[in-house]
Amino acid sequence: MPTERVTKPKVLAFGPLALTDPAIVAEFESSFDIHYIQPTDRAGTVATVTKAAETEGPFYGALIGMKNGRYERFDGELFGPLLPSLKIVASVNAGYNEVDLEWFTKNKVYVTNTLNAVAEPTADMAIMLILNTLRDFSRYERKVRAGEWAGSPIFPPKDPHGLLLGIIGMGKIGKHVARKAQVFGMRIQYFNRHQIPAEEETKLNVKYASFEDLLKTSDVVCINCPLTDDTRGMVGEKEFAIMKDGVFLINTGRGAVVEEKALIQALSKGKVERAGFDVFDNEPNINPFFMVNDRCTVQPHMGSFTDVAWKNAYHECLANISALYLDGKPISPVNSFDLA
Amino acid sequence: MPTERVTKPKVLAFGPLALTDPAIVAEFESSFDIHYIQPTDRAGTVATVTKAAETEGPFYGALIGMKNGRYERFDGELFGPLLPSLKIVASVNAGYNEVDLEWFTKNKVYVTNTLNAVAEPTADMAIMLILNTLRDFSRYERKVRAGEWAGSPIFPPKDPHGLLLGIIGMGKIGKHVARKAQVFGMRIQYFNRHQIPAEEETKLNVKYASFEDLLKTSDVVCINCPLTDDTRGMVGEKEFAIMKDGVFLINTGRGAVVEEKALIQALSKGKVERAGFDVFDNEPNINPFFMVNDRCTVQPHMGSFTDVAWKNAYHECLANISALYLDGKPISPVNSFDLA
Repeated sequence: MPTERVTKPKVLAFGPLALTDPAIVAEFESSFDIHYIQPTDRAGTVATVTKAAETEGPFYGALIGMKNGRYERFDGELFGPLLPSLKIVASVNAGYNEVDLEWFTKNKVYVTNTLNAVAEPTADMAIMLILNTLRDFSRYERKVRAGEWAGSPIFPPKDPHGLLLGIIGMGKIGKHVARKAQVFGMRIQYFNRHQIPAEEETKLNVKYASFEDLLKTSDVVCINCPLTDDTRGMVGEKEFAIMKDGVFLINTGRGAVVEEKALIQALSKGKVERAGFDVFDNEPNINPFFMVNDRCTVQPHMGSFTDVAWKNAYHECLANISALYLDGKPISPVNSFDLA
Repeated sequence: MPTERVTKPKVLAFGPLALTDPAIVAEFESSFDIHYIQPTDRAGTVATVTKAAETEGPFYGALIGMKNGRYERFDGELFGPLLPSLKIVASVNAGYNEVDLEWFTKNKVYVTNTLNAVAEPTADMAIMLILNTLRDFSRYERKVRAGEWAGSPIFPPKDPHGLLLGIIGMGKIGKHVARKAQVFGMRIQYFNRHQIPAEEETKLNVKYASFEDLLKTSDVVCINCPLTDDTRGMVGEKEFAIMKDGVFLINTGRGAVVEEKALIQALSKGKVERAGFDVFDNEPNINPFFMVNDRCTVQPHMGSFTDVAWKNAYHECLANISALYLDGKPISPVNSFDLA
């Protein structure tokens, strides 16, 4: 009998570890047993986790895979059945506004996010939305598909060259956006909770602006900050009012950073010339306005969704679980507590 | 009587000089009289030019403005009425496959294209098509607009990071594409009629490949060459056969560089995973296949169509006409002849 096998701690994976490097998974499996469930919607996933805990547990860790929006929020209802053995929930996400951190901290369960895997693909999404929105790409594609070629009358859309891009949130994603946007001739200013070091500003070729100055002077406003108590609704009626007429707005952060009612008004009045969104309030049940409006370019929260991001995010999750087990500390915890 | 005014040579502008710098136009008008016509379709434009020649001529030069595809080709039928006074036709286009060069050369009329104005915006179009096509942007946008959010099942699309981009045509546009694609982590190889100098290859961080090797090894093939007798149909059945299975194809050059029948077959069989086109055979009456196919991202020949490109292209046209008149030689002629 392979007795050593039963001593391995178990990890509950929410969905298959698709696209991961087999060697990395094999290495992980030399220390852990992975049990897979197939998450569905919220109710179905809660039931599946509860059953897995009863029949296959106890579980040391859990791994939240990609496309988890359909069964969030991550809280006591979903993870309570895995207590008291559960020590870590490793998520592929970069943001963690979907996590009931208080509940995890109270129960001394680490939650980890990913630091690098999804940052660059999300920045690429912001760049795609900036270029597509400026050049009215999506509307012209619809024209061609409707058999109208470019339609008529046509007027040249905006070139990125020389435009001032205002980045809200200068974390890993914002920095990638700044670097990439400059290759298209854009000038960069940013607002962040904390100004980044002068040396880094020089290296990135960006300048700090107050939130108000950024809104007043940017040709393109790009939201790359996480959703927190501070950022919820930070762009609303008052903020749209001081933006330049005909401003372009991009959001790859979280929908709720922008007040939706004020946004729809700004788009309807033409205050915002065009806008590109990868994120919305109340995903996936978004306001139908965004499905029909011609000024909007829309994506179903695909920023972090590439084969490379997927692979790297799972690798970061496995590394976090291993690090806690072997070294007593995960690599990128988003909560902390007294272990005693 | 303003007698000095009647001594100015006349220039016939096909469409308004929209978005040009008023100071540059005023400077030009100190030496030339600009007469404007509003081009329509082929027959209407031929009639308008003929009438303008009779009632407002003689014209020293003509300026072909943006969105000229609807009344091309540029030949004796269109410009014959402006002979024998006509000395130069300055076009905003970069390519000149639409020009009957033999006719112009025989009649000792210079044709000029633009060198810089549209190169970078066209490269930006190639980058947009590369990113959008890899990440299946257009299909996901249609899903959202159809009320299906991301649809189901979903699988992560391709990340540009680490992919090998093969650029066919390393002129001004190809070089911009090479520079910009690298910021997204792509590796670059190229095929060109003439290999570029080693020093430039090093600076651009690109390596030369034979046409065959490029087709065999590229993850993404991007066509940026002009349409000439050599390039017409250069990508056909035989070329698709040696490409990697699941290759991505981008065309911002000219539609006829690719054999359409072979292309449609390669897309239908999945040999080409996805493709992005700004150019087509027989624009604007394109094959309906491209309007309905889910693997294609399409644009109505918008590569050179931005506010900045438009402005700079007109400036280059005015500079060419001035240079011929003042210095006896235009800046960027695409034909030459014995002036004697």
